[in-house]
Amino acid sequence: MRKVVIGLSGGMDSATLLGHLLEQGAEVHCCTFYYGSKHGKWENRAAENIIDYYQNKRLPIFGYAFDLQAVFANLLSTSSLLNSGGDIPEGHYTDITMKSTVVPGRNMIFSSIMASLAESIGAQEVALGVHAGDHHIYPDCRPEFIGALDRAVYLSSDKTVEITTPFVNFTKLDILMAGKVHYKTEVPYHLTRTCYTDHEFSCGKCGSCVERLEAFSQYGMPDPITYQNQV
Amino acid sequence: MRKVVIGLSGGMDSATLLGHLLEQGAEVHCCTFYYGSKHGKWENRAAENIIDYYQNKRLPIFGYAFDLQAVFANLLSTSSLLNSGGDIPEGHYTDITMKSTVVPGRNMIFSSIMASLAESIGAQEVALGVHAGDHHIYPDCRPEFIGALDRAVYLSSDKTVEITTPFVNFTKLDILMAGKVHYKTEVPYHLTRTCYTDHEFSCGKCGSCVERLEAFSQYGMPDPITYQNQV
Repeated sequence: MRKVVIGLSGGMDSATLLGHLLEQGAEVHCCTFYYGSKHGKWENRAAENIIDYYQNKRLPIFGYAFDLQAVFANLLSTSSLLNSGGDIPEGHYTDITMKSTVVPGRNMIFSSIMASLAESIGAQEVALGVHAGDHHIYPDCRPEFIGALDRAVYLSSDKTVEITTPFVNFTKLDILMAGKVHYKTEVPYHLTRTCYTDHEFSCGKCGSCVERLEAFSQYGMPDPITYQNQV
Repeated sequence: MRKVVIGLSGGMDSATLLGHLLEQGAEVHCCTFYYGSKHGKWENRAAENIIDYYQNKRLPIFGYAFDLQAVFANLLSTSSLLNSGGDIPEGHYTDITMKSTVVPGRNMIFSSIMASLAESIGAQEVALGVHAGDHHIYPDCRPEFIGALDRAVYLSSDKTVEITTPFVNFTKLDILMAGKVHYKTEVPYHLTRTCYTDHEFSCGKCGSCVERLEAFSQYGMPDPITYQNQV
C-alpha cells in the first residue's frame, strides 16, 4: 500500500491534500506541529477534528503530534506569527507587511522531521500542500526551494524518500473545488482553521483569512466557519 | 564580526571545528541536541565542558541546548544509537554492522534547526564538521547530500545562510593535528566524548572509539580520556 507522510496544519490546503491522498487509496500519516504560533491552539484542534472525521469513516489515517514549542522559543525568531511576536498584520498576502509573519526555516524543519518519519515507517513520499497561489514573501514555499528540499531529502534518506507536491499547479479555488466536488468523501472545510490570529473565531482580516474568503467567494458558496463579525 | 552556528556534539570533530572558527576570529553559536542517544548524557556533558573551557578563556562563544528527545521518540527509528534500539556493534566503522547506528534524517533535522537560528541571529554560516574520513554508511554525511543541504538552506533563508565544511578535505588525523598544534588555544581533547555506548568510560571497541584511537595512535600520543580497560 502506498504510504504518504503529510503535515496537517488544520488549514484548507493540507485538509484537501489529505482528502486527495485518501481518494487515491494511500495510507496517510499526518504530522501536526506545535511551535508556539498564535493560532496554534486553534489550528491543532482543527487538525485533530479532521483526523477524527476521516478515522470515523474508517479511512487509513494515522496522527503524530510534535511539540516543538521549546525548540522554536530557542530559535529567537521575532515573527509576528509566534506568541512571542507582535500583532498579525491585516490586509492581503501580497502586502509587504505580511513579511512579519515569516518564521525562518519553519517548512524545512517540519519537512526534515517528516522525512525522518517516512524513512522509518517505509513511506516513499512526504507530500506538501504547496500550490500555485503560494506567496513570494515566503522563501520556503517557492518552487526552487521545494526542488532543493526534495534533493536533500532524497539523498539524506539513501534515495528512499521523495517530496511530492500534488497541488503545485492548483490555485486556492482549484483546491476548494477538488475538496468539494472531486472526492468520494468531501473534505470537511467546516472543521478547518485558517486565521493567523489567536482569536477563537477567525478575524476575516489577516492575509490568510482574506485569501480563504476570496476562494469561497469565487466558488460561490459561503464559508462554513464562523467569523468574528458573525458572533 | 563573522557569526557562525555549529552543532557541538562533544566529540573530537566538532570540538576542533569550534577551535578552528575561534582561531579565525569568528563568534561561534554552539547548538547541542538531546535526541535520546545512548551516549547523549555523556556527550552533552562533554559539550558543556568544552563551552566552559573556551568561555573561561573569554572567547566569543554562545551555547544553545535543544531537547528533541520526545520528537525522536515519535519518529519510530530503530537505530542502535538510540536508547530505544539494540546494542551498539563493536568493530570498525567500515563494517556493515555499523549500519544499525544510522538515525534517519538526523543531520538534516539538526541542520534545519541550526539554519533557522542562523537566520534569526544574522549569522551567514552553519558550519559542519564533515571530513574526508566520513563514512559511506551514513548517507547524511556524504558530499552530495551536503551540497543539496546547502542549496536548500540557502533558498529557505532567502539566500542569507550557507552550509560550510572547513574540514571537508581533512582526515581524522589532520583534525587532531590542527587541534593540537595549529591554534593559539589548544583544543581540549581531554574533555571530548566519542564513544557511542552508554558507559561512563569509553568502550574502546565501537566504530567511533576505534577510529578515534587510530587517529591518536597515528599522531603518536596517548588519548587523554579514560577507557573502560583502564579503570
